Order: sequence, then C-alpha cells, then structure tokens
Amino acid sequence: MPFISQRGQDMPASPIRKLVPYAEAARSRGVEVYHLNIGQPDIETPAATLEAVRNSTFKILEYSHSAGNESYRRKLVKYYGKRGININYQQIIVTTGGSEAILFGFLSCLDAGDEVIIPEPFYANYNGFATEAGVKVIPVTSYIENGFALPSADAFEKAITERTRAIMICNPNNPTGYLYSHKELIRLQNLVKKHDLYLFSDEAYREFCYEGEHFSAMQLEDLEENVILIDTISKRYSACGGRIGALISRNQQVLDAVLKFAQARLSPPSFSQILGEAAVDLPDDYFNTTKEEYRKRRNVLVERLNRMEGVYCPSPGGAFYAMASLPVPDTEIFSQWLLESFTLKGQTLMLAPAAGFYGTEGLGKNEVRLAYVLNTESIHKAMDCLEAALKAYPETISAGKTASVSYP
Amino acid sequence: MPFISQRGQDMPASPIRKLVPYAEAARSRGVEVYHLNIGQPDIETPAATLEAVRNSTFKILEYSHSAGNESYRRKLVKYYGKRGININYQQIIVTTGGSEAILFGFLSCLDAGDEVIIPEPFYANYNGFATEAGVKVIPVTSYIENGFALPSADAFEKAITERTRAIMICNPNNPTGYLYSHKELIRLQNLVKKHDLYLFSDEAYREFCYEGEHFSAMQLEDLEENVILIDTISKRYSACGGRIGALISRNQQVLDAVLKFAQARLSPPSFSQILGEAAVDLPDDYFNTTKEEYRKRRNVLVERLNRMEGVYCPSPGGAFYAMASLPVPDTEIFSQWLLESFTLKGQTLMLAPAAGFYGTEGLGKNEVRLAYVLNTESIHKAMDCLEAALKAYPETISAGKTASVSYP
Repeated sequence: MPFISQRGQDMPASPIRKLVPYAEAARSRGVEVYHLNIGQPDIETPAATLEAVRNSTFKILEYSHSAGNESYRRKLVKYYGKRGININYQQIIVTTGGSEAILFGFLSCLDAGDEVIIPEPFYANYNGFATEAGVKVIPVTSYIENGFALPSADAFEKAITERTRAIMICNPNNPTGYLYSHKELIRLQNLVKKHDLYLFSDEAYREFCYEGEHFSAMQLEDLEENVILIDTISKRYSACGGRIGALISRNQQVLDAVLKFAQARLSPPSFSQILGEAAVDLPDDYFNTTKEEYRKRRNVLVERLNRMEGVYCPSPGGAFYAMASLPVPDTEIFSQWLLESFTLKGQTLMLAPAAGFYGTEGLGKNEVRLAYVLNTESIHKAMDCLEAALKAYPETISAGKTASVSYP
Repeated sequence: MPFISQRGQDMPASPIRKLVPYAEAARSRGVEVYHLNIGQPDIETPAATLEAVRNSTFKILEYSHSAGNESYRRKLVKYYGKRGININYQQIIVTTGGSEAILFGFLSCLDAGDEVIIPEPFYANYNGFATEAGVKVIPVTSYIENGFALPSADAFEKAITERTRAIMICNPNNPTGYLYSHKELIRLQNLVKKHDLYLFSDEAYREFCYEGEHFSAMQLEDLEENVILIDTISKRYSACGGRIGALISRNQQVLDAVLKFAQARLSPPSFSQILGEAAVDLPDDYFNTTKEEYRKRRNVLVERLNRMEGVYCPSPGGAFYAMASLPVPDTEIFSQWLLESFTLKGQTLMLAPAAGFYGTEGLGKNEVRLAYVLNTESIHKAMDCLEAALKAYPETISAGKTASVSYP
C-alpha cells in the first residue's frame, strides 16, 4: 500500500471535532446540547442577499474571473471605503472563503521552512494552512490576565529569526475576542517595517466591535508593500456556507503572485458572489441590530461566567468569542465529561478546549473558548449547566472519571 | 519591500491567459472573436438544477459538513453506481471544484520533492497544483500521430524513480480528447501495482465519450488502496461556476488525510451542493442530448480541420477538445497574430497554443487545442477564419510579423 505523505500525517485534525462523536452520542441519548463550541452564527443571512441569488436569471453557471467578478470587486471598494480602507478593485482578489486567502497568502509570501509569527492563542486552522504550505508557525504568547492584549515588541523581537517572513494577527481576535488598539497596531507597524516583514491581518470579525472603533492594518501608513488583508463574508453576513472571502493588498507583486494561484483553481464560487455583491447594498445600519444582539449575548455570557467560583473571563472587545479559565485541570477531559456524563434537566453544553488554540505545548489547558452564537435564553441555560457541572466535577474526578452526574 | 516566495515566482501563469489582452483588444476594435480556447461550455446548466437552488428556502447559509452534505454524498453513490463505480458515501469527499481535489490528493499522497508521472500534453493547471504542493511533474510523452494514446509501459518504467509516488491521467483527456481503452488502463494497473504507486484519475469528462464506453480507474480490480478519483460537476452539468468536485477513494488512510485538509478550509460551497444533488435526479437520458450535440460539433471541427492543407487533427474519443497540428512554426505567435492582425468578414478566432500543455520544453509548438464549446454554425465560421488565415500566414511571416491581413 502506498504511504500517506509526511504532511498528510502531520496535518492537524480539528481540535474541536475530536469532541463531535461525544456530542452526537449525547444527542442520540436524548440530551439537548448547547453548542458554544462553533463559530456558526445563528443570525439569519440577510434575506435580501439570499433573494439576490434566488432571483438570479442566468442560464449557464459560468466560471467567473479568477479574481472574482469585476462588478463585485467594484462594490467591495465602496464597502471598504466606508471603513476608511481606500483601495481600488484591482487590489482585491476574491477567494473561496477566508481560508483560501490565507493559503494563497502563505504560498505567495513564504517558502517551505519560512516562519510566520502569530500571537497565541490563535485560530487553530492557521496550523492547517501552515502545514499545507510547509510554513512554520512561531507562537508569541498572549495572556488571559490582560485580556490577551498584543504581546510586547520585545516578545516579538525574541521570536524573529532569519527565516521570519511575516507576522499574522486576527483582529478582532478568534479565539480571544480581543480587539487590538491603534497603539498596538503601531507596535506591529514598527516591527514589520524594521524587519521588512509581511503583516497578515485577518479581519473576519471587523463588523463586531463592542468597545471603540476597529482600526484596520490597511489603515497603517507607509506599509503599502507589507500589509495583506484577509477577509471573508462568512461571519459578517452569516454566510459561512457561501465560501467567499478576499485577499487584499497594495503590493502589486503579491497580487500578481496570488492571481496565479487563483488562476490555477479557475474561479471562486459564482452563486455566492451574487450574495456578496447584494450584501454591500444592505442599509448602513444593517450591522447595528446584529451587533447589539451580540453585545447583549456577550454581556450575559461574561457576567454569568465571572460569577462562577474559580472562573475568569475577560470581557472581549469584539468578534463573538470569549475565552475563560475554569477551575479544572484539563478542559479537554472536562468538555468530554460534560458530553458523556453530565446533564442538568436533560441538557448539557459543548465547549471548545483552548489547548488546541495554542502553539506552545501545555498552554491553555484550563481555558475554553465559548462562541456566543446562541440567543441569550440559551446562553443562560448553558451557563446554568456549566455552573452546576463545575460544582459537581471536583467530586466526580476524585471518585474516578467515569462517574456521571445528572440533575432532574 | 519583502520578497515574493520562490514558489510564488515559479508558479506558472495560465498559458491561455497570455493571449487574453490581445483578444480584448480585438473585441474593442469591433472584431468578433470565436473562442475555441476555453473549456467553458455554452450548453445551458440544466434548468431543474438551477431551480433547486433558486427554490431553496433555508434562512441561514451555513457551513456544510467538511466532506460535503451527507444527503449529497448519498445521492452521488447512486450516480456512480449506475456507472459501475461501487462506493459508499463515506468514500466521497466533496471538494471545491476538481481543482481542490487535485490539490488535496497531491498534499495527502506526495511530499515536497516527490514525483508524479503524467502523460503529456496534460491539463496545464496540474503544473500549478504541483507547484503549490512542491511536487515535481514528470512528463511521459504521448503523440499526435497515434491520437495521443497512452505511452508504453516501457516509457513509464523509464520515468519511474525512487521519488515517484503517483501516475496521473485525465480520462477522457483534456487537452487531447483521447479516451483511454480498457487495455490501456490495465497497463496502468500493472505499473501502479508493481511499483506501489497511487493512480490519480481525473474523470471530469466521463459523460462525454463518443466512441465506446468509458472505463473508470475505479473499476480496476485489486487497486483499492491505489486509485484516487478526481471528479467535478463543472463540465458534466455545465456548472463550472458552482465549484463542486469530489475526491473519491477506497483507501481509508487517504480519506482520513484528505478530510483533515478539508476540515481546515471548513466546507465546500453550500449553494452548489444543492445544485449537485438535484443534478443526480436528472433523467437518465439527460446526457444523450448534450453528447449528441458535442459529437456533432466534434465531427464538424475534425472534418474541417483535416480538409485544410498541412493540418492534422486525430478524431478525439471524448471530452470536448481536439488537438491539431498546424503548418506554422509557432502556434503561440500564430494565435497572437490571429487576434492582432487577421480578420475575415470582421471575425477571427482564439486558439490555445499547445506548448503550455507539454512538460517537455520545445514540444507542441506547432499544435493547438480547440475546444468545441460553440455551436456548429460558429465552428464553421471559425474554421472559415482559420482556413483563410493559414493561407495568408506564410506570406505574412515572410513579409515580417507586423503585417496584417483582413478580408472584407
């Protein structure tokens, strides 16, 4: 039998999906599971954007331009312009989700063996794209104590080697929800400029900021050749299944290289480009309602968590994630126990253990990521479960891990 | 300014797209251009499949399963079953176009520096995916004289080294239109078995066979661990913009590895999976009409070509491409001249110079690929142009390349 490639073996499995079989088993036992583990929003995709697809009248589902429909890219210029990001449509390459933008960015800017520095905890799939591209992720640790603020310039300097080609951030951050300040972005600007690096800025959650304004890396001055914006409509418009993202840069050589990768795969999906184009025409206040809803949920979640004994959850400034430390030795085992052996009124919850978001072995073992993609009522019920579970758990582990607890 | 990666520089630009600016310039001068250069069919996407998308009623455009919707994969089992390919739905991973299936296949089965042997001429984007994956393409030449039949076992044996991990074919073939016989597949079976290689079989054009039956690599016996089927609905249902393909294998380790790559990019596009699922329900005779239309076009094209002096075009058994040798020294220069300096009644044609489909430098310089994705009337007109152009060209080149010829 022929071998699987080394990178096929090295490719990380999704840290969250490990728990999926336990959640499925719980559901098949009739347990209601609150999913705080995933980034699939429950907010409806704007009806007008779905209608744009459903009312389309073309007869042939053709390839689009490899960089995306020109009409869509011209629309996007307006969207970005309103957010202080001034670009032209030729600086936008529409990609199949933000995922493909990351992969194309890595492939175009880094060679196998080159290094990208990323503050940890970070979006676990960055590891996957790095493995695909043979790129090494060098983590620089951020800490729950200060809400996962950007690590110091010193910490970055220590991580920089001759193979360093890029720094990557996610702003606001998945998984921490941290919103980087203007001052922190200036810190990155100086680092990037000094060492002539690329700055990848993943701004998938740009529209969801609850404290202050979002400052985009594209707004940093004098970094035209360095900044590569990674974007997606997945979270912005609850359109995850559309698989439409974008790679944006003012560096023409990067755009030329990325376009070659884009041409090889022919084009991004056509239906969802129609959706994306219609989304730009949504009223300017469209995000207000969604943002208010998320803010409410965040407040409930954070307040409930911090009221629990031994739990700490810094209030996130953006996105729809919060990180919390729990008074348990290993949140992976705890999360599995929640699904296997705990119920409150026939309910339990699914968490994302945070260790999978760290590049440094051993970090984040007592942390979890919680996605507030459920309505406040469900969040309350999930927090009821968690609170009861945390009370029951110490006794359970001292009695051996298989003991199960269920409240009527 | 930070550097572009070596692979970003090495990444091949599309050989066809080089001519695009000349075609655009011709159009802007008012010239009508017949596009025989691209694989975008003019056949309508089946109305029922577009309606399935347009009549969908979901309110959230969610991520699908990373391997594709289970309902779609179960439907696909039926499609393949009717074609003698017996698999279960867990052996199917739905991908973003056939493109992604090729990339995931390369990444899972080959490491950087490993080699894949491909009969040339071959689909030029294989080079792109190989560059992305750091894989080396080793061409084994097939020849226009015998219609681009599979090279001999000896020719393959000579190309096999200790880094060879796979043989890849496209059947029926793009760009040659050649349909591999059962006997030729047995030749591959023996080679693959003997050297314990993977066999990638790209069967994007399976439904378009005009001489005899298609025999799939998945039907080869005793190769469960070796065969990886690359598929797509792009050509089958004129749904190129849907970006839905599939990687299919009976090798569980390959499926496990591919799934990890699929999980990193989250999911294939949701809208087009609805289309793909509806397509399986089309009446069994759906392909007959399309196939008849393509057969008619092929016959016109091949007959017209072979009637021209110095032109040779073997009749292709499948797909919707034909390769022809022309009595010109360099078809790239000739194709550019057609767009820049030639018209017949205000019309000209765009060809795909074949050199870009060869891995061996210098081969295919007098060959072109012609896609018969236009109706027979247009093909006739395009052939009128080509015939007149080939008569005018020798004098033109002896007079210097800038001379232009136009007939009223």
